[in-house]
This record gives sequence, structure tokens and C-alpha cells, in this order.
Amino acid sequence: MSVGEFDLIARWFTRPARRAVLGVGDDCALLLPAPGMQLAISSDMLVEGRHFLPTVPPERLGHKALAVNLSDLAACGARPVAFTLALSMPRVDEAFVEGFARGMWALADAQGVDLVGGDTTAGPLNICITVIGEVPAGQALLRSGAHSGDELWVSGALGDARLALEAFRNHVTLGAEPFAQVRAAMECPQPRVALGQALRDIATSAIDLSDGLLGDLAHVLERSGVGADVELARLPHSEVLAAQPEAMRHECLLAGGDDYELLFTAPAAAQDAVRAAGRATATRVTKIGRIVERGGVTVLDTHGRPLDCSAYGAFDHFRS
Amino acid sequence: MSVGEFDLIARWFTRPARRAVLGVGDDCALLLPAPGMQLAISSDMLVEGRHFLPTVPPERLGHKALAVNLSDLAACGARPVAFTLALSMPRVDEAFVEGFARGMWALADAQGVDLVGGDTTAGPLNICITVIGEVPAGQALLRSGAHSGDELWVSGALGDARLALEAFRNHVTLGAEPFAQVRAAMECPQPRVALGQALRDIATSAIDLSDGLLGDLAHVLERSGVGADVELARLPHSEVLAAQPEAMRHECLLAGGDDYELLFTAPAAAQDAVRAAGRATATRVTKIGRIVERGGVTVLDTHGRPLDCSAYGAFDHFRS
Repeated sequence: MSVGEFDLIARWFTRPARRAVLGVGDDCALLLPAPGMQLAISSDMLVEGRHFLPTVPPERLGHKALAVNLSDLAACGARPVAFTLALSMPRVDEAFVEGFARGMWALADAQGVDLVGGDTTAGPLNICITVIGEVPAGQALLRSGAHSGDELWVSGALGDARLALEAFRNHVTLGAEPFAQVRAAMECPQPRVALGQALRDIATSAIDLSDGLLGDLAHVLERSGVGADVELARLPHSEVLAAQPEAMRHECLLAGGDDYELLFTAPAAAQDAVRAAGRATATRVTKIGRIVERGGVTVLDTHGRPLDCSAYGAFDHFRS
Repeated sequence: MSVGEFDLIARWFTRPARRAVLGVGDDCALLLPAPGMQLAISSDMLVEGRHFLPTVPPERLGHKALAVNLSDLAACGARPVAFTLALSMPRVDEAFVEGFARGMWALADAQGVDLVGGDTTAGPLNICITVIGEVPAGQALLRSGAHSGDELWVSGALGDARLALEAFRNHVTLGAEPFAQVRAAMECPQPRVALGQALRDIATSAIDLSDGLLGDLAHVLERSGVGADVELARLPHSEVLAAQPEAMRHECLLAGGDDYELLFTAPAAAQDAVRAAGRATATRVTKIGRIVERGGVTVLDTHGRPLDCSAYGAFDHFRS
């Protein structure tokens, strides 16, 4: 039996809305924002071969498509409320859609976010999710708030997603267990939604790491009109990445991409508060450097000497 | 010079926000909803070959991509506030992007709606827009409000977009001037945003016609638990369509698709108010039938006899 567009939506993508006034099924979804809240909105589009490999299990793809969007809300300190899903597929492969929906709903349920609408169509595989969150007016974390003297922090560990990609490309060889571990980092990123909200009154700026540490840090520095010193030895990483040769380690840590960790700044006096936010949300937080008055990014090696980072730019989807 | 992702966004897709607190350039956009307003949200994804032909001028494609989304807001009686644009393209073709942006901005400016964020990536051409509008709480027009005894109305004229598609497919032959006219209907639909808002206190239900009159009407009837009689002779159409053979005329009028007109119901007593809303918004409105207690849709021919419409289903992107 062929499954049509309306069956597809009814079977896999319709559930009663929890917070929305009206969910899937009309021309628009309806939301009633809470008084005094600003809405935070972000869209991400995922294309096969660019944002995921054909080898990704559908369940993980469903998770990741929502996760990368929730990560943008996390970077603003917003609480997720609702999302729309637009999905283009060559045909309705039931096993694919079933798995995709399962992964997506598991994360949506865990985060208490409603699927309120969207679109499905035939075409090359493409997933576009738009998330809507809320944050008390004036309290959103922005890229523009970093000050000289602030400390620079990052959540989780960096570089494993990139290492997995290098393994898929046969640029590195990993054992089964290490490969499974870094592959999970690439395919199942955990959006730092709770940490982002816990940092609202603490952090001075934040961004989510999607294009690589140095590239994303550059956005913060540019917006804030400051520079940064990053201590290479402090960058949090897995044992798997630690076992790699230095050049690969540096590439993955500094220009990895797909980390979906939060990079944020906070005053030195807020150090204890940052650590408490990490503990309260069960999220590792690591101080990796400091904000300085000017001069772009300086990465200091284990001897405190500047490392040449000219090779590590921001990831560009039309150039990479 | 190759144009990268960040140049692309900066050059063509960044402008100061008018109504948004924060527009393009951070992890999320920020909006502060007006008190007492509900948000209306809709996403549409456009794929080449499905929603537009390779022959479409980029400027018209930019217009249409936003127009079909605004049409969903119109059907809810919502006022457009903001939208996100996610764009996947094989490469950055400057002439294409420049034209696309021009068409999109012209409509955005005319409707006073902010582009607040989005995504660009390399991949098969795909355009996904999510629009956000606002409507006073409880006043949104829904598909579910039609009552037996209501009259059935439609805006504009039907079927020209479908006739243009048939001409592109060489199923019909049109002269240059008639072809240009129906092609404009297909490529440059005018979202009935002003009419939708004017109908808020008048209409009992509304939907935008994207998949064909009978298919979309069926959604309203199903949601409202009613039936409808439609008078074929009343369906508004252009002179170009009038000159077509009967079978083609019926196909285009009843199952055309891509009309982006509003189909709505209103109590018989509201007839003058509907006409006044049409005049106030310079939009043609035509009474095409009435809502009855049950029985799906009956289309009555010029002799008042039921027409066999079994061939005209709702357009399904995975079956058509």
C-alpha cells in the first residue's frame, strides 16, 4: 500500500498539542505566548551529504534534526515551546519515516516541545525544522555581550563529531568501540537546553558550536568587539580524541564542527555560579580561556606560545 | 569571486528588523508578541519540479515562496509579522539569488513582514519558509467553523495556475498574451492577507486553496462535520479559462491547485459584510454555494444536476 501525504502526517506527525492552542491540521498552528516573554526563533535545514551521511540510522536523524535546532534555543537561554517540520523525501519509505519520527518524538517529549505544523513533499531528502522558544524579555543570551576580562567556557567535550566524520571518510581508523562512541557524538548531539536557561543571569554571551570552535568564537568576538585567548590544553575532549595524532586532535578541537556544545562567556566573579549551573543541569562545563580587549583569537599551546591557526576557518557550506 | 555562506546572508538576506527585537545574525531571532495576541505559525517547503518549474524567473520564485506562506496566515485571519528562510542551492548563482531576494523583499515590504533568520546550505534547490503572524486571541479563522446554512465564498478567480501548468506540459496551447496572464497567476499568486483579516468577525471558517477547490473544501467539511453544494456556474474564472474546452475548464476550476485564494464560509445574513470586506480590501469575492448538513460535496452543473466529480481528489505530493 502506498502511503500518501495526508496519511503520512496523520500516522507519524500528529499528536495532541500540549502547549499550543492549535497544533497540526489547520492552515496555521496557534500559540498563546506567556505574558512578558519574548519569542526566540531559529530555522535549520539538513541536507544529505552535508549535514548527515546516508548511513545515519533514521531514528538518530530524527533526533539530530530537532537537536540542532534546540541547540540554537539553548544558546539564547530560551525554553523550547514548539516546532514545525518540513520534510522532502524521494518517496515514503515507511521504515525511514517510522524511525525518524521515533527519534524526533523521543527528544520532543524529553524537552516538552510540541510539533505544531509543517509540510511534507516529494523531492530530494531535506529536513527543515523551525523552533520557537520563550525567554523572559531582555534576558536572552546574545553573541554580542562578551566583555574584556570575562572568562570563556564551553560545555561538554569537543571534536568527537569531527573525528567520526574523518573515520567515515577513511582519514582515520578507529576500533569498534571508539568509533561507536564518536559516531554517537556526531549522530546524537545533546542540545544543552537546560544549561542555556541556567546561564541566563550568569553568562554575558553565548553561541552554539556548529561550525567549529574558532569559527563560532569569531562570531562572538566580532559581535562583541573583543578578542580572546584560548588555552589549547584546557579544551575538553574524549579519551578517543586524546589518542589521535596532534594534527588531527587540533583540527577536531579547533575547527571540528557539529559539536552542538555551548560556548559562553561570564565574568570571572561568576565562576562558582557557572560551575553550579553545570552541576544543576548535569552538564560538564570547562573554562578554556579569557576575553581580551582586541586582536581576534590567540590559541596558546601547552607552553603558552601562540599556535598558528590560520588553517582553521569557519565552516562554510558553499566552500567546504 | 566565489560567494560564501556568510557573504550570501550579509549581502542579500540581512536588513534591519522593523518589528522584531532582534533579526538575522544571532543564534535565534527575538520577537516580543503584542499582549493579547495569539501567534499563527505555518511552514511551506518548495521543491523544483513539484512546486515550481525550472523556467520560473528567480524574482517570481522569491515572491511565490513567501506568498504561499502568507496565504496560510491569510486563511487564519492573521497579520504577518516575521518569517525565516532556509535555502538549499547547488551553488551560489548570484543572478539567481539577487532576483530571488528582490522578489521576496518586494512582497515582504508590501506586507510589512521581517525576515528574522534562517539557514543557507549547498544541496538540491529547496526553499523552506516559516511565517509567524498574530491574531487577537480566539479570533483566528479555522477550518472547523462551517455550519449548515452558511454560504460558501471564494476570493479572486480559480484555475489559471493549473491552466498555465497544462500549457507548460503542452497539454493545451495558448496565445502569447493569454499564456502570460495565466503564467503570472501560477508564478505570482497574491496572498489574500488583507481580506483574511477583514473576514475575522464575519467568516465562520476559512482555508487557502493550494491543492484544488474540491480537495481543500473537503478538509473544511471534514473538520466542520458538514457537507456542501457548489454551483459550477458560479465559480469565478478568467476569460482565458472560459475559452477552454469543458473538461479542461472543470479540471482547472475544481482540482486546479496553486490558486492561493481564500475559500470561506459565512452566515447568509453576513452577505453584505462579506461584500464590504471584499470592497475594502479591493479583492473580488464570489458566492459559490452553501453548506448543508451532510453528504460531502455536491457540484451542481448549469442545469442544477449533480456532476460526477469522482476524478477530482485532493492533490497529494506523493501520489500526483
